[in-house]
Amino acid sequence: MSECDRRALVAWSAIAEPGDAVAHALVGILGPGEALSWARKAVDDPVGASFDLSMPRHLTDRAVASAERWGRRREAWDADQHLGRAEKVGARVVARGDPEWPDELDDLGDAQPYCLWVRGSADIRQAWSRSVAIVGSRSSTAYGEHVAATLAAHLADEGHTVVSGGAYGIDARAHRGAVAAGGVTVAVMAGGVDRLYPVGNANLLAWVLESGAIVGELPPGYAPHRSRFLTRNRIIAAAHATVVVEAAHRSGALSTAFHAAGLGRPVAAVPGPVTSPGSAGCHRLIRDGAILVTGAGDVLDLVRPLDAAREAGSDGEKGPKGGAMTFATPDQRRAYDAVSRKGSTVGEVAAEAGLGMAEARSALGGLLLAGSVVRDGVEWRRSPR
Amino acid sequence: MSECDRRALVAWSAIAEPGDAVAHALVGILGPGEALSWARKAVDDPVGASFDLSMPRHLTDRAVASAERWGRRREAWDADQHLGRAEKVGARVVARGDPEWPDELDDLGDAQPYCLWVRGSADIRQAWSRSVAIVGSRSSTAYGEHVAATLAAHLADEGHTVVSGGAYGIDARAHRGAVAAGGVTVAVMAGGVDRLYPVGNANLLAWVLESGAIVGELPPGYAPHRSRFLTRNRIIAAAHATVVVEAAHRSGALSTAFHAAGLGRPVAAVPGPVTSPGSAGCHRLIRDGAILVTGAGDVLDLVRPLDAAREAGSDGEKGPKGGAMTFATPDQRRAYDAVSRKGSTVGEVAAEAGLGMAEARSALGGLLLAGSVVRDGVEWRRSPR
Repeated sequence: MSECDRRALVAWSAIAEPGDAVAHALVGILGPGEALSWARKAVDDPVGASFDLSMPRHLTDRAVASAERWGRRREAWDADQHLGRAEKVGARVVARGDPEWPDELDDLGDAQPYCLWVRGSADIRQAWSRSVAIVGSRSSTAYGEHVAATLAAHLADEGHTVVSGGAYGIDARAHRGAVAAGGVTVAVMAGGVDRLYPVGNANLLAWVLESGAIVGELPPGYAPHRSRFLTRNRIIAAAHATVVVEAAHRSGALSTAFHAAGLGRPVAAVPGPVTSPGSAGCHRLIRDGAILVTGAGDVLDLVRPLDAAREAGSDGEKGPKGGAMTFATPDQRRAYDAVSRKGSTVGEVAAEAGLGMAEARSALGGLLLAGSVVRDGVEWRRSPR
Repeated sequence: MSECDRRALVAWSAIAEPGDAVAHALVGILGPGEALSWARKAVDDPVGASFDLSMPRHLTDRAVASAERWGRRREAWDADQHLGRAEKVGARVVARGDPEWPDELDDLGDAQPYCLWVRGSADIRQAWSRSVAIVGSRSSTAYGEHVAATLAAHLADEGHTVVSGGAYGIDARAHRGAVAAGGVTVAVMAGGVDRLYPVGNANLLAWVLESGAIVGELPPGYAPHRSRFLTRNRIIAAAHATVVVEAAHRSGALSTAFHAAGLGRPVAAVPGPVTSPGSAGCHRLIRDGAILVTGAGDVLDLVRPLDAAREAGSDGEKGPKGGAMTFATPDQRRAYDAVSRKGSTVGEVAAEAGLGMAEARSALGGLLLAGSVVRDGVEWRRSPR
């Protein structure tokens, strides 16, 4: 990647919201540098840009409309200021194609981050190559916290990186368990890595920096808005497997599980008391095809073949499991309706359903877990029955 | 069924141990009355009987050998004494083909009981026609007891019969929950119904008699020996579905689940804390293909279609689910080795593995749950991979 393209990726991470499907598509088609030049022209001269015939027509129109939005952050287009601010907080940038870039993020396709802003001592490429995501509710129970900490400690002890979201509850216990075991853990922030968010976890996150890393796809100074948590989850889901420890019926942790399934990663869930609302989401996931795990041994059984397959360069694909057709989210219903009988790619589903690539992939992941769709390479189809 | 055959069934229930495959086969081939006459002759004249060419050769040899064992209970061959003793304790006998005989027991094939000894006010044919088995560990936790009682109460409230084994722990809570809800519950004893066993549950079992029933396949006066608990489990498993609430790794409740799977009945398990050894068996069952249920609603979803199918006279068959090949018991390994590549019946597996029909069916049920074998009508095959 040229230095110009690399700086453009840094700029894109500042200009476009994570999950901005048009920006992702523009960068995918033109390359980051060219896309940035095009966007700059479109901001200055929308009419002229709309007559540009070098891109697919449907994309040109949407890109011109999006450019107005990108233009509102015109002061953010200069990569240097972000890089300067990062340096001040001890953060580095790892862009697509950099030596430290985790290959696992490429599996996100168009929706992969432009770059990751990284603080901490761990090499994130290495860290991701043996990664397991442990996620769950912020409003955890003592049971869930115990399981998360124990699981994380055992996995860390076996040399695995524990990836989570740095939040209160299960996330915090997972990070803490890994740290306590002297292992590597990565916290993926929804905002800039300058803020150790949430503040109540600042001490914990400071420990994470010692042997692990805190990463985010937005430059330092960017706040963790609500919508950024959901798009952030796709980065966590790029770990080799995702384990949901506790999740209520509509927990955000389920979105991470759907993202992971959409990426073809194993999705596991820890059961708990049926009397605990905090385990209801886990039980639902298991009924829909997620793998029931009771401890680190079960999780190791899941990731070992994947780690090996990835080292050998092949793709560890997981087939769908049976189950009743369910729509856990409105996005899933829209995505299902958008899957054509003869098969659709994620991009086609996204376009037809009016979803971003990451949202479409997550929705398809949920449908895959629920057995409503099947995956055949890049094509998605409705399940036969 | 003639009165003679009916009395012979009563006698067979007293002479042969439940699960005596040779007795079951003899009765199946000759009919109960003829089988009894043949056995009587074989006791008196083993050499003469061994030259009887009216039966399959391999069965004749084994029947002659068994007759010696049956003969040791010669004083038990008179049906009248058992019927008289039953009358004294207020028990009736329901034999195969009687109007009150539950059709569900026919699904046990050769291994069906010769008759059931019954105490209590419930019509057991009716009771079984809307039955759900709830089983679990004797050494239950407060969590399991709460779930068992709540589940049983809700199912009873919906008009379902709760079938269980009358034991301490989960069984007791299931019966109690059904009784408390004013429902019908059936306790299947491993010994004679004259003894309300175990004694600590005598009060509870007295309540069960009020609106439900206590049944057993052995005549009054017979003790609940250890081996009789395992064969008794196949009768519980003849309910329309089996729910395991709590079970440790090698709990007897798992044998009920395997029996149920072997009969093509839905097998469900309630998850619990992964930190509780009492839920380990349930989690193993779910990983092997049992259905995760969190409450009565989930169980009702399982039995409704089956109840309807049975009313319509068709068979509610459940396909196998995927999973790693596992042998939970030595019987399962023997049964697996005995399944031929081109398909084997339960009888062929039993003969090849040296197991009784009920044991073979139970072992095949466990293998089916574990995904190691598939079932195609009466034929069982090893799973493709």
